[in-house]
Amino acid sequence: MGREILDGSPYLSRLALHPLNTLISAMPAPSIKFLQSATSNAWIEQAIANLDIVLLDHSHCERKAAGVALNLMFRYPSRTRLVRQLTTIAQEELAHFDQVNQWLEHKGIPLAPLAAAPYGAGLRAEIRPQEPDRLLDSLLVAALIEARSHERLGLLGDHCPDRDLAKFYRSLMASEARHYGAYWVLATHYYDRQLVDDRLASLAQVEKQLLANLYPQPRIHS
Amino acid sequence: MGREILDGSPYLSRLALHPLNTLISAMPAPSIKFLQSATSNAWIEQAIANLDIVLLDHSHCERKAAGVALNLMFRYPSRTRLVRQLTTIAQEELAHFDQVNQWLEHKGIPLAPLAAAPYGAGLRAEIRPQEPDRLLDSLLVAALIEARSHERLGLLGDHCPDRDLAKFYRSLMASEARHYGAYWVLATHYYDRQLVDDRLASLAQVEKQLLANLYPQPRIHS
Repeated sequence: MGREILDGSPYLSRLALHPLNTLISAMPAPSIKFLQSATSNAWIEQAIANLDIVLLDHSHCERKAAGVALNLMFRYPSRTRLVRQLTTIAQEELAHFDQVNQWLEHKGIPLAPLAAAPYGAGLRAEIRPQEPDRLLDSLLVAALIEARSHERLGLLGDHCPDRDLAKFYRSLMASEARHYGAYWVLATHYYDRQLVDDRLASLAQVEKQLLANLYPQPRIHS
Repeated sequence: MGREILDGSPYLSRLALHPLNTLISAMPAPSIKFLQSATSNAWIEQAIANLDIVLLDHSHCERKAAGVALNLMFRYPSRTRLVRQLTTIAQEELAHFDQVNQWLEHKGIPLAPLAAAPYGAGLRAEIRPQEPDRLLDSLLVAALIEARSHERLGLLGDHCPDRDLAKFYRSLMASEARHYGAYWVLATHYYDRQLVDDRLASLAQVEKQLLANLYPQPRIHS
């Protein structure tokens, strides 16, 4: 499974060794498998012109990602595999959160709230409220957000003019790839594979639409 | 500060070396400073007679403790000191959660929901909804819960007949002590010391009352 879900990543050569990665193909391709659209040049230009705000938004993203994992652990306390995998993910997100906050401190950027782009709420609105749909959708929405984060941190790693910061972005990418892989694997553990594929394709279409028009304020998911 | 808040712990000799602990007095005393009552023998007997349920409840407690820290980080995203300290606490709680879950697996106890004792809700009801009271109360309620956890894990470490499990309980105690110290230090960072002391005494009185009658089901905070 890991092989095909990560086939599309152009960043595979950078992935650190990890149990999940033993399943990963080394064949590069132009886009990340889960995603139905590649990020536009307009986003890259907007992000590079607003690196401080993007860094602050990145801090919020990491905290939110930890929150998503923890919320699922609260909602499904008896699902052993989910609890175990999401514990690891939440720990990694918190470690990244701390690292991003150290970058903010290093650059003299104070912590501050930021209005969210419509992306997250738009995807969450697709989560059907009844089980068993709710868990499936929750896992796949999380997978899509992680996949997009993986793509965009890669772009920041490629285009950021601050070499150290670029290196930092690249260092986070292996985790993001593991995370979207882990959410997908959990979905296929609890649900029929065809059901997962169909729903993922449908949600990925929404994800693509949500990014069709660049959000005027620079964000990781603008 | 660390000196006086931890003066009362009978477990000081076991505390691992840690920056906060350099402030800790080594003088033992009969109770933990924050707490206005010592745990009854009835609780110890109930817990030792129901170690499996207590272990499962402990898992829930660690996840909830991580959730408390993360929720405060969401509510006060601009408070740098709070965010930094609670990131560490949330990471440690998640690590403990994972360790407790490994113990559950080792003992063949499946993850499962457990009805909560009235303790947590009773303390949360004391959190005044308006700022600046809300943050002060949130920090002090968290401090009290951590202080009580510290005391009770110590009792489990002393009385648990399974030597390895007893050792595990003792291994967690240093963290619990750091956590209640950290919450208290945050309170004194943001609020006047006298205000903190007065409110802590008042909340500790409620905490004592909540434990005055043993909850019929065995829990860490029954």
